[in-house]
Amino acid sequence: MKITAMRITPIALGDPPLLNAAGLHAPYCLRTVIELETDNGLTGLAEVPGSSAINAKLEAARSVVQGRDPLNWHALRSTLRAHFGTDSAAARGDKPWDQRALVQVESALDVACLDLAGKAFGLPVATLLGGIVRERVPYSAYLFYKYEGAGGELAFGTDPQAKGWDAARQAAALDPEGIVAQAKAMVAEFGFQSIKLKGGCFEPAQEVAAMKALRQAFGPDVPLRLDPNALWTVETSVKWGRELEGVLEYLEDPCRTQEGMAAVRRAVKLPLATNMCTTSFADLPGSINTGSEDVILTDHHFWGGLRASMELAAHCRNFERGVSMHSNNHGGISLAAMTHLGAAMPNLSYALDTHYPWQWEDVIVGGRMKIEDGCVTLPSGPGLGVELDRPALARAHENFQRCGLTERNDEIEMQKKIPGWKFAQTRW
Amino acid sequence: MKITAMRITPIALGDPPLLNAAGLHAPYCLRTVIELETDNGLTGLAEVPGSSAINAKLEAARSVVQGRDPLNWHALRSTLRAHFGTDSAAARGDKPWDQRALVQVESALDVACLDLAGKAFGLPVATLLGGIVRERVPYSAYLFYKYEGAGGELAFGTDPQAKGWDAARQAAALDPEGIVAQAKAMVAEFGFQSIKLKGGCFEPAQEVAAMKALRQAFGPDVPLRLDPNALWTVETSVKWGRELEGVLEYLEDPCRTQEGMAAVRRAVKLPLATNMCTTSFADLPGSINTGSEDVILTDHHFWGGLRASMELAAHCRNFERGVSMHSNNHGGISLAAMTHLGAAMPNLSYALDTHYPWQWEDVIVGGRMKIEDGCVTLPSGPGLGVELDRPALARAHENFQRCGLTERNDEIEMQKKIPGWKFAQTRW
Repeated sequence: MKITAMRITPIALGDPPLLNAAGLHAPYCLRTVIELETDNGLTGLAEVPGSSAINAKLEAARSVVQGRDPLNWHALRSTLRAHFGTDSAAARGDKPWDQRALVQVESALDVACLDLAGKAFGLPVATLLGGIVRERVPYSAYLFYKYEGAGGELAFGTDPQAKGWDAARQAAALDPEGIVAQAKAMVAEFGFQSIKLKGGCFEPAQEVAAMKALRQAFGPDVPLRLDPNALWTVETSVKWGRELEGVLEYLEDPCRTQEGMAAVRRAVKLPLATNMCTTSFADLPGSINTGSEDVILTDHHFWGGLRASMELAAHCRNFERGVSMHSNNHGGISLAAMTHLGAAMPNLSYALDTHYPWQWEDVIVGGRMKIEDGCVTLPSGPGLGVELDRPALARAHENFQRCGLTERNDEIEMQKKIPGWKFAQTRW
Repeated sequence: MKITAMRITPIALGDPPLLNAAGLHAPYCLRTVIELETDNGLTGLAEVPGSSAINAKLEAARSVVQGRDPLNWHALRSTLRAHFGTDSAAARGDKPWDQRALVQVESALDVACLDLAGKAFGLPVATLLGGIVRERVPYSAYLFYKYEGAGGELAFGTDPQAKGWDAARQAAALDPEGIVAQAKAMVAEFGFQSIKLKGGCFEPAQEVAAMKALRQAFGPDVPLRLDPNALWTVETSVKWGRELEGVLEYLEDPCRTQEGMAAVRRAVKLPLATNMCTTSFADLPGSINTGSEDVILTDHHFWGGLRASMELAAHCRNFERGVSMHSNNHGGISLAAMTHLGAAMPNLSYALDTHYPWQWEDVIVGGRMKIEDGCVTLPSGPGLGVELDRPALARAHENFQRCGLTERNDEIEMQKKIPGWKFAQTRW
């Protein structure tokens, strides 16, 4: 089997005005769909965050990828690294999301090659990762502070006909009451059994109050998480972390650096999770040396693919870290990949994060994947088990061209609401 | 695909009277051949060290294995562990070789399931491990102090017709000159480009003299290794390690415990390798904490299989350990498995150990695998690329029944030559 063509299609999916440490989500989130075609007529799919930098790196990888055997991942990866070098840790950037481009190119190719292998042999990707441990993969509700608005073409407008979760998705949520209402609507629709709040938007007292309101509303059996995206100082993290002892399942990235996290961890009786201080294999020795966290959030887009995420899980098993999963906005191809990873990971310790409920469009055949009882059932087809809906892909690509966005920049979006607003690495 | 039958065949292969820290090799080494048959007519092979304990554990695993999907390794492994518990570190034993039974059962099943998957899809096992990095896998010459004798039916007798390596294989080697002569004959036959001496047989001064004689004979371009199998104290290791600075590629297990190895490593400018102080995933945190070695010798029989050995290699990459490979006596099924692992491991840093030249019998079709220019070329067939020679297997099983051995016990064999000889964990 040889790769004969690599197609790279930037798309934009509608996204509501969600608040986070870096500012505000634009009306569209950008993704890029990668298709690898082979000489035996198969097509392997993957999806990664979309930005002009990543798209350029994907285009630059094309000459390395074409003609390669998709079953020899080691050879393809080492050729890519010889071609590009490797990402520096600094290239991650200071935003909540990882900006390293090569690792995302590796992720795209790892996933698409696994999809090809699965299709070639009639096997689910989870089987290629060592075997299916669970058919139903649990996800967590992912709450956001948000302004009123639907996103997409409606932007800050709303659809007055919307009902249920569709209506709640468009409503503002700017205080504990709004967050609890959002949670109730999301849980009613999708059956989530864990709840995460994206914090780092308001001062800690308000976000801690929101977590306590969620605890009050859902009781002690629903695990809760808060993610201030490292906007707190160590002192703030200790102060408010202590307030959250017994309330949270874990506190995610309260502050910056492994040393900062380790200091908080020593002072607070609350598991700490990270996708900002331990974010690559090169960070693992520092994690062990400092004891910076209890739980590492893998994200196959940022760790170099599904196989790399399985390697991370093995490290977590041996060094007594839990494993959970980070998410940015994504469509169904990524949701399928995340679900195969969750299905194959023996030591998955927590429900996975997903932004999926916040989107309403997708580019896969059969429409959006179902989340029921908080779980996604492993797709039944070979490979990832999803196929491209070409008309939907064309529409999403038109949206990309029309919206004019070239990268995620939540600061610019926020400035449209609050002139002069600036991202800060540490705020409280 | 379902496993319908599991066949367990103990075999004995002739083995010369090789000396080592635990005593003397018996005229036969014991191995066990595992065959998994499936409902679609395939047979998956594996080979593990043979002992009544391991064979009993394999028999006890049969009820767990039958009816299982060989493609779902995670499910099979977790069911095995639920059935048996896991091996304790203490179960490794104090001998140079690892005596944990469950990890060897896991290895047998991992290899046989990969062989089945490869045969089902027409893929080499190395491809299933992520891809072929090298087609020709380098091995190291493995020298032994030995008494005169051929082993097998001839036991301490020799075949006067033997020529070349066959003659050298039967000759005594009890001093530096004998070791150099053995090395020259082995290198002439197989083309090895690295050389290892099994030490722990004579006092350190003599073994160090042998290494210096090898350096003299082969020059500085042939990497040399010495393995005293932890018979030295920390003080002895430091003293003689310093003598070997600039002479060895690495010194393997000079002394016991991670703390002991770390102390030697701080005092001696020589890379240390281990298959005795860091021998399981549970040992990795201790390795990182103490800095006990530079190189970890994987052995898929003792780490739980080929997939587990790939995981170990990933840990070595991230924690700056080199990777090499340990060997006990083995036949062609294990050599094929070791070669697939070596072919797929991106960060294999050293030529692999193998006892293979010391045997002259095998149970695979086509006779013994070839070692040329010190390398084994990856077999070309699907799976492991080797098939059972049923008449040869039957003969090797008859040898097992006739020889009366039930486990490896080099102390008893040594006592036949030196009455009252006792194994000691630390000797010099």
